[in-house]
Order: sequence, then C-alpha cells, then structure tokens
Amino acid sequence: MRMSSLFLRTLRDDPADAEVASHQLMVRAGLIRRVSSGIYSWLPMGNRVLRNVAQIVRDEMDEAGAQEVSLPIAQPLDLWKQSGRDEMYGSMMFRVQDRKENWYALAPTAEEVVTTLVAGEYSSYRDLPVNLYQINWKYRDELRPRFGLLRAREFLMKDAYSFDADLEGLQRSYDAMFAAYQRVFTRCGLTFRSVKAQSGEIGGDTSQEFMAVAAIGEDAFVWCEQCDYAANTEAATRRPTPEVSIVDPGPRESVHTPDMPGIDVVAEHLGTTADLLMKSIAFDVDGDLVLALVPGDREVNEFAVANAYAPAKVRLYTDADFAAHPEIPKGYIGPDFDGATRTIADSSLRAPHGWVTGANRVDHHDRNVMLGREFTPTAWAEIVVVEPGDRCPSCGGPLRIDRGIEVGHVFQLGDKYSKALGATYVDDSGSEHPMVMGCYGIGVSRILSAIVEEHHDDHGIAWPASIAPYQVHLVMLPGRGDGAVAVLATAEELYAGLRDRGVEVLFDDRDASPGVKFADADLLGMPIQITLGGKGLARGIVERKVRATGERDEIDLANAVEILAAQAAAQS
Amino acid sequence: MRMSSLFLRTLRDDPADAEVASHQLMVRAGLIRRVSSGIYSWLPMGNRVLRNVAQIVRDEMDEAGAQEVSLPIAQPLDLWKQSGRDEMYGSMMFRVQDRKENWYALAPTAEEVVTTLVAGEYSSYRDLPVNLYQINWKYRDELRPRFGLLRAREFLMKDAYSFDADLEGLQRSYDAMFAAYQRVFTRCGLTFRSVKAQSGEIGGDTSQEFMAVAAIGEDAFVWCEQCDYAANTEAATRRPTPEVSIVDPGPRESVHTPDMPGIDVVAEHLGTTADLLMKSIAFDVDGDLVLALVPGDREVNEFAVANAYAPAKVRLYTDADFAAHPEIPKGYIGPDFDGATRTIADSSLRAPHGWVTGANRVDHHDRNVMLGREFTPTAWAEIVVVEPGDRCPSCGGPLRIDRGIEVGHVFQLGDKYSKALGATYVDDSGSEHPMVMGCYGIGVSRILSAIVEEHHDDHGIAWPASIAPYQVHLVMLPGRGDGAVAVLATAEELYAGLRDRGVEVLFDDRDASPGVKFADADLLGMPIQITLGGKGLARGIVERKVRATGERDEIDLANAVEILAAQAAAQS
Repeated sequence: MRMSSLFLRTLRDDPADAEVASHQLMVRAGLIRRVSSGIYSWLPMGNRVLRNVAQIVRDEMDEAGAQEVSLPIAQPLDLWKQSGRDEMYGSMMFRVQDRKENWYALAPTAEEVVTTLVAGEYSSYRDLPVNLYQINWKYRDELRPRFGLLRAREFLMKDAYSFDADLEGLQRSYDAMFAAYQRVFTRCGLTFRSVKAQSGEIGGDTSQEFMAVAAIGEDAFVWCEQCDYAANTEAATRRPTPEVSIVDPGPRESVHTPDMPGIDVVAEHLGTTADLLMKSIAFDVDGDLVLALVPGDREVNEFAVANAYAPAKVRLYTDADFAAHPEIPKGYIGPDFDGATRTIADSSLRAPHGWVTGANRVDHHDRNVMLGREFTPTAWAEIVVVEPGDRCPSCGGPLRIDRGIEVGHVFQLGDKYSKALGATYVDDSGSEHPMVMGCYGIGVSRILSAIVEEHHDDHGIAWPASIAPYQVHLVMLPGRGDGAVAVLATAEELYAGLRDRGVEVLFDDRDASPGVKFADADLLGMPIQITLGGKGLARGIVERKVRATGERDEIDLANAVEILAAQAAAQS
Repeated sequence: MRMSSLFLRTLRDDPADAEVASHQLMVRAGLIRRVSSGIYSWLPMGNRVLRNVAQIVRDEMDEAGAQEVSLPIAQPLDLWKQSGRDEMYGSMMFRVQDRKENWYALAPTAEEVVTTLVAGEYSSYRDLPVNLYQINWKYRDELRPRFGLLRAREFLMKDAYSFDADLEGLQRSYDAMFAAYQRVFTRCGLTFRSVKAQSGEIGGDTSQEFMAVAAIGEDAFVWCEQCDYAANTEAATRRPTPEVSIVDPGPRESVHTPDMPGIDVVAEHLGTTADLLMKSIAFDVDGDLVLALVPGDREVNEFAVANAYAPAKVRLYTDADFAAHPEIPKGYIGPDFDGATRTIADSSLRAPHGWVTGANRVDHHDRNVMLGREFTPTAWAEIVVVEPGDRCPSCGGPLRIDRGIEVGHVFQLGDKYSKALGATYVDDSGSEHPMVMGCYGIGVSRILSAIVEEHHDDHGIAWPASIAPYQVHLVMLPGRGDGAVAVLATAEELYAGLRDRGVEVLFDDRDASPGVKFADADLLGMPIQITLGGKGLARGIVERKVRATGERDEIDLANAVEILAAQAAAQS
C-alpha cells in the first residue's frame, strides 16, 4: 500500500480524551476514530489489524472443531425474558423497538438465540456434541465507556457455544476451547494468565478468564509465584489455617469506645493492632441475618460468602437494612450476637489468642473474646479478600496480585439456557434431557488494546508480526539532489519485488521529510523498517531496522527482496 | 467437512412462510433459519456462501482502489438530523436510545458517518480522491419483510463512498465502481443488467441499478432488445414523437357522460377507443395546479413529471386537494382548464387527429379538442410509463419489460452530504469547496437469493463454483455387505487426498440410505458430486455428476484426486 493514497493521517499529540497508551497510540496511528462515546470507526490500518486478529481466532476455532455461524445482532427481547437475562442486564443492554412495537435487544452475547437454534435442529444424543461460534459486533451500554477499545459500547467479539449430552462431554468441549484460547493469545503475542473466575452475568458454574497482564488492566488477579494457580480477586482464596490450641486469654471484659471511626482507631485506643480485632459483618441470606467473621485487618470477600450459601440469595446489609432493624448495633456487632441465625468464620480466626470484638451494644467493644467459649462459628471457610504475600491454596507459595485486561472468558454453563429455552435431546433409552452447555468469549477488538499496551514504547506501536497490518515499512528518501530519480525508481522496484513475493508492504512514497517519515514508521509499528536513500543506493545497500528491538543493519540491495521475503515468511 | 458432524438438518418440505424458490431452498438446505420477521441466523453452510460472496466483493473493491474500513452500526442520530435523512427515512429506520437518552440510528447506510470521518482527516485537494468501503450488517424496518433475504430487516451490505475534488473526478470514481460491479456480479454467476435509476432516498443526480434478472424480482425494468439501453420503470422513457401536421377535426362539441367510471367506458359510450382520449392529470407543483396530459390508454409517470419540474416539490393531487378545491371538476378536467397555471404534455399527444377530453364541467366530455386550437401545452416531455413494444429512446428498437432483483446501486451524490456535514477541501489557489461524493451499494446477503433464483431446479440448488460452500460433494455408499469396510477406507483416503490438495470437500459419511444422500446432494448443490460405492470400487471407478447440468461420467479411482483437484482449480 502506498502511503500517498492510504486513508491515514497520523497525529503528533495525544488526543485529549485518551488516558492510556493503547488508546492514545491507536488514535495517533490513525487506526480508529471516535464517533460517539465508546463507539468507533475503524480506518483502513485499524481494520487490517482487526481482521488479522479475527483470522487467528477463526483459525483456532476451526482447528478446535467449532463451526462458524452468524447470529443476528437484533434479537427478540422475548428470548431474553425467557432466560431471565433481560432483567439481569438491565440498563447495560441496548433495546430497540420496531414499527410494530416489538422489542429487540442489541446482542451483548447470543446464548438465547443459539440455544433456540440448536433446539430447532437437534434432538438426539447422536447429534451431539456441537460447537457453534461467530465473530460479530456486540453491544453493552456501559455507564462509563473508557480506554478506547477496552471498555467500548460497540465491540467485536467471538462467541462460541458448545452443546453436549453430559458433564463429561462438556468438560471435553471446555478443555478444547481452553487449549484453543491459549493458542490464540500466544499467537497474538500476549503475555497472559488463565485465572479462575466468578461467572458474573452469564451464570453457571466453572469459569476461567484469560487476562493479558497490563498495569492499566481494569481487573486485578491473584497468582502464585511457585505454581500455576491464578484466580481473579473475587474467586481467589488462600491456604486454610489449620486448627490450633486456644490459650485462655482471661475473662471477657467490656470497654467504652465511643466516637471511634474505624478499626484502626479502636485498636490504637485499646493499645493493640487491627489484626487482633475481629469484624462481624452482617449479610442477608435469604432473609436471615448471617454474620461473616474476619480479622480486623482484612476485607471480607462477598463472593466467597455468597458461594458458601449458594444457591441462597446473599447480600451485604445496607443502611436501609440497619434502619429497619434498630435492634442490631451497627458497628458493634459481636460474633455471639443473638439476632444472627448463623455465623461463618474465616479460618484465620483459628488463632491461639483472644479477640477484640464488638460488644453487641452501641459504643462498646469486648476484649478476650475466646473461640469455643464466647463464640463457635456455624461454618468455617476462606472468606477474606486475598492480599499479596498470602499463601497459595495449591502449593503454599507466596501469592502476588497483578492487573490484567480480560481478553477471553470460558464458562461451563450447564443446563441453565437449555432448560429455559427447551434445548433437549433423547438418549439411547428414549428419555429426554436438557443439553449441557458451555460458552466461550474472546474480545477481538479489545485484544488490540492489550497488544498495544504490551507492544509499544515512547515512539509508538511495535506490532507482533502475526497481526501487523503490513510486514515491511519501506521508507523512500529520494532527497532533492540529482540522485532522486534513481532512488525513486529503485524504491518502486523494491516495492514491486516484495509484493510479487507476497510480502505485505507499506510504502512511504510521500513527499515528506526524513524526520516525518521515520517518526511515522515508529508510530505505525510495522515489524521491519527498510530505508532506501541516495547514499545507501550508491553503496548498494538498504538500511533495516527491527521495530521492536531497534536493532539495525544494512542489507545488500541486490538480495533485499529475497532476504526480506524470507524474514517475513519466517515471522508470520 | 464431514456431514456427520456438520450443523445441518435439511428439510424435505417447503417451509410454510416461504413463497419463492430461493427462500424455500435456502431454508430447506439449512443455510438460514428465521429468528424474527426479516431477521435470520446463518448456519455454517449459509455462512460459508455469504463469506465467499463477501470475499468476491472485497477482492473487486480492493482491485478498484477502494480501502476497507469498518463504520459503526449504532450511529448518532444527530448526524442523520444534520443531513435531513432522519426525517426522510422515517419509520424505515430503527432508532435506539442509550441510558443517557441519546438517540442512535441502526445504520441503513453510512453517508453521514463516513463524510464526517473524511472531513476530520482530509482538507486539501492533494488528499483526494479517496474511496472507502465496508461490508457490514445494515438495518431497515421494512413494513412487510418477505422472500427471505430479499427484503430482510437485518442484511449484509457492502457500502462504498468516494470523495473527489470535482465532477470529472467523481465520474472516474463512479466508472471504476461501475466496472467493479460488473466483475462482481459476473463472478457470482448472475445474469444482470445495469439500468438507469431514480435515486430514491439517497438523493443526488445520476444513478444506476444492477438488476439480477428474475421473475420474482420486486422491481420491473425496461430494456432494449437492440441496444444496451436499460432503465427502471420510473426512469425509463420512450423515443419522443416528432411534430406532425394537425388535421382540423371539426368543431369542439360537448357530450353528456354521467356515471361512467373509467376511460374505457367513456370511450365505448362515444364509439371510440381509449387511445383517442386524453387524460389531464392534476399535480401540485410548489402549490400550483399543473396538468400532465397523456393519452387515455397510458399511465402518467409521476417521477418524470417530478424530474421535469425539479427542484420544485411535485406530487399528485389527492382526494383532500380536490375536496379543498371544489372548483376543479375532478375526472372532467380538460387540457385548457383555466385553473391550471401550466400544462406538460407527453409528446405522443402530437397526433394529427382531435382528442376527446374532459369538458371542465362535471359529467361532460368534449370531442374534437384540437392541439394548437383548444390547447397548447406549456411544455412537452416524455411522461408516460413505458410499456412493452414502445420504442427505445437510444436506438428506436422495441423495448421489453422484465423483472429483476436489485443487487447493486451506484449513485453520483454530488455535494449534498459534504455540504451538510462540512467535508470541504482547499484547492491549489487556497479557496474552499465541498468534496464531490459518490456512493455505491451491494446487497451481499441479497445476492445469495438472486443466485439461488437463477441457479436451481426442482431438486435443489446448483451453486456456481465461484461461491459454492464446497467444490466437491463426496457421497460414500458402503452398503451392508462384506465390501463396506473397503468402501469406508477408500472414501476416507479420497477425502484426505482431496483436502491435501486444497479442495473443499463436503463428505457424506453419514449412516443414511443412498436415496437420502443423493437427495441431499442435489438439494445442497455443490458443483461436483462424486459417488463411491461397492460396485464402483470393485471396478476401480467413482461416479461423477455435474450438479448444474446433470452430466454423469465415471473416473478412474487411481487418478480421482488429480482429476478432481484440477477441475476444482479450473472452476474457481
């Protein structure tokens, strides 16, 4: 492609609305332009990268035996009501009414449509398994779209859906997708981890997220330095504390602690530290008051509490709950508060010492509250939010926390959708069962942001060869002197020669200064830069620079096509 | 692809809601499934054909120098208000509101977005020309979606937009697109004609439609048997009638013609024929009453009248207009009615004889109304709807009327959008001008319907090789006897051998009867059918059938891979 006719204008300065490097660079390099909040136009260069990423995804889906389909973006809202997801998505979903006042959802995903589709075609165990995928535009009406493609409202997503006869089949389909995802992200040049996840709005049981490691990532995740354990902060746990012998701390005694906002103030007042205090956190579990007990220096993990009582409905007490129950001494609840129907304690409360706890009356705390004497939890579990240095639940090694960009997510859905939408099959004995489903998403446009976050420097983007819009950036510098015509002619020959060999070349044939051309080459980020100028031509060489490493050398002009074609072929 | 795992169930019977062959066959062959009125899911086989057609379009757009982009489906409605198309589209457009109550259009096309995009990047005559295209889902809230993909509400469309400095540039861009369109439709195996068109909702001046000839087509078009003249019925004209000497018909006389509904009854009552009567049709032209005069046996072409008075607003008188003007004798207006400010006459009224016309009073007609004596039109033009046998305006040959499916449309837009949305450039003398635009659409999903309409028979689809989902359909018939294992093994070898050679093969490895397999092969329509059974294997041959012609022969099993690979390569 000739830059003189390419629809592209690069920008020297970062756009005002772009806070992170990937967003800044994708705008400056002319890949995307904002049309509305979280909605973008893709310019030719951006469209090429997007298609390259989509093709890697397609290859690996096909390789894994999934079959490509195309499902509607405008989906009947009735289907979403049948599955209960209309309500669940709420204002995150765009809804549109047609002229006959029928409502449609703009697809955030397609479980309902694909389940109905499979239900209409398949009915026997002989038909299964099947895995259908599509790569299509999706919609989420984000409250605060930001970071360019990272949290967009219109985005390109690959969504796949597997249908099996039983859980063993699901596990096979899930494992095949998991392996395909690893290949996709590796081929895209990403440093990533697969982490155990909560399932969020999709529902279902087992799920794992693929996180591209990035400081700007919106999601934190926990991982072990010594083994392959990784989980998002909601799903992460630490190694349980074993049982210990309790030492009698002396008799329980009450202390007046008025007007002390927060654990640390109370601890200081009592001459102790926060880790020796105990918090009793009020939850509503199907209408009952349940207390979650954690050390004073740790946060309770609401998802862990919810998991412990699943399928009950679990939520933190709100101000309104406390207002409705004035008998509960908010901020001063002890582990033996008699209004609680149950207590669940983090295993780290198995300490030999006594605890400072709420005294079950306003403005008072108790000392020397002893496990087994003043309180005995109904259940033990790991319910604190993991912090760096906690011990890995798998191997006991130290856990670390990093931030990441969620680029993929795989779910074992089970029969939630097949039951709701009637996707059943008849087994070999003639009895009917719901199909067992999995679903598998990749944020195709979002991957681009993750790649640029990982592959850039102060000068611009450095595309991995696998997804680069062009393999070679050919910079022609004819100068103003007598040799200009010869440089022009040789550059044209080189351009034609490389294209004949199937090399994708971006040819800077513009009438612009060397400084502008070099700056654009670094900003745009093709893997190999080739410069042809008058001096080099006189010496029979072109200069080569590897964009990612900055490595430079000279190559023989006579063999340049051969050498570059081989290099491009080896890289892609 | 193995049919045993392909997500496909063919249907023996036509679906109840499908009226035309293409719709019936695409559902029966498992290409598409209806999700909602005019909204479809594309199954793997359908998705393959759709992608093949899209790739042909992409090839030819790239070849013509257009650059691929991707523009949002959800477009700010404000842009559509700026161009005036929000109102113009009215209830044909889907509109959606976000959580902040901003409105978006679901794109029917993308003139506004792309014009804004180019306006943001380009500003100099040196930047032009540029042509941007995308292949993406589009939306129209059709009142009566029907015929499957032919009038769908969600459909895949290629839309391209050219930007030039002047009309000469636009003509070059337009001609390049026109030529690319001819290549696209030819490669897709369509019999088509390019016809002069009215521009409809897009606006602008010159435009041409590409019509795939099809009896079920929703649009009629006129074409000449002797030259390449073709136009849609709205734009078609016939050769003008030359001036003739008028013979005095005798004095004008009035006849009482009460209760005579229609021209034919009046003609019969007066002992004459409809072609000797004249109709005076009332139009509102910017608020004035204008009469369009045509022979009694012909229909007036409203578009021709509107063109004659452009840019004035022109419309037929309605019942409400007549009710508001009781002085106009509806049904009895004569060409000399004194309430009319102007008259426009079809040139065929230059006949030597006198006319029977309305008498300008209710229940009366006049005879012997003579051109030049009783009436003299303000203007002459060709304003009747063309009928078969009329003479071609280019060569005088007989015109014919066929029906067609509109598969493409090219427009010279001019500066309508660039003016409304500020897409200007500065010329070499420093003065600013609006860019001159063209726009070019291809109904990618609709093309499939047109192809199936043209390429099918009583047994099913016969895909042109250029877009067939697979080149070869391999039918394996192992039977129940001793030879079954050998047939299975040989079929697997053949399948593997063809795939190694890059041939796309649909392999019917199902446990089904020969009758079922042959019926499906004819229904699904791959260009080459190969059958391997026990008897053939014993003789060292496979049977080959060309789906389109029914031609059969036997080919040597030993050379089958070689022969079929060569045939597939030659076809595609």
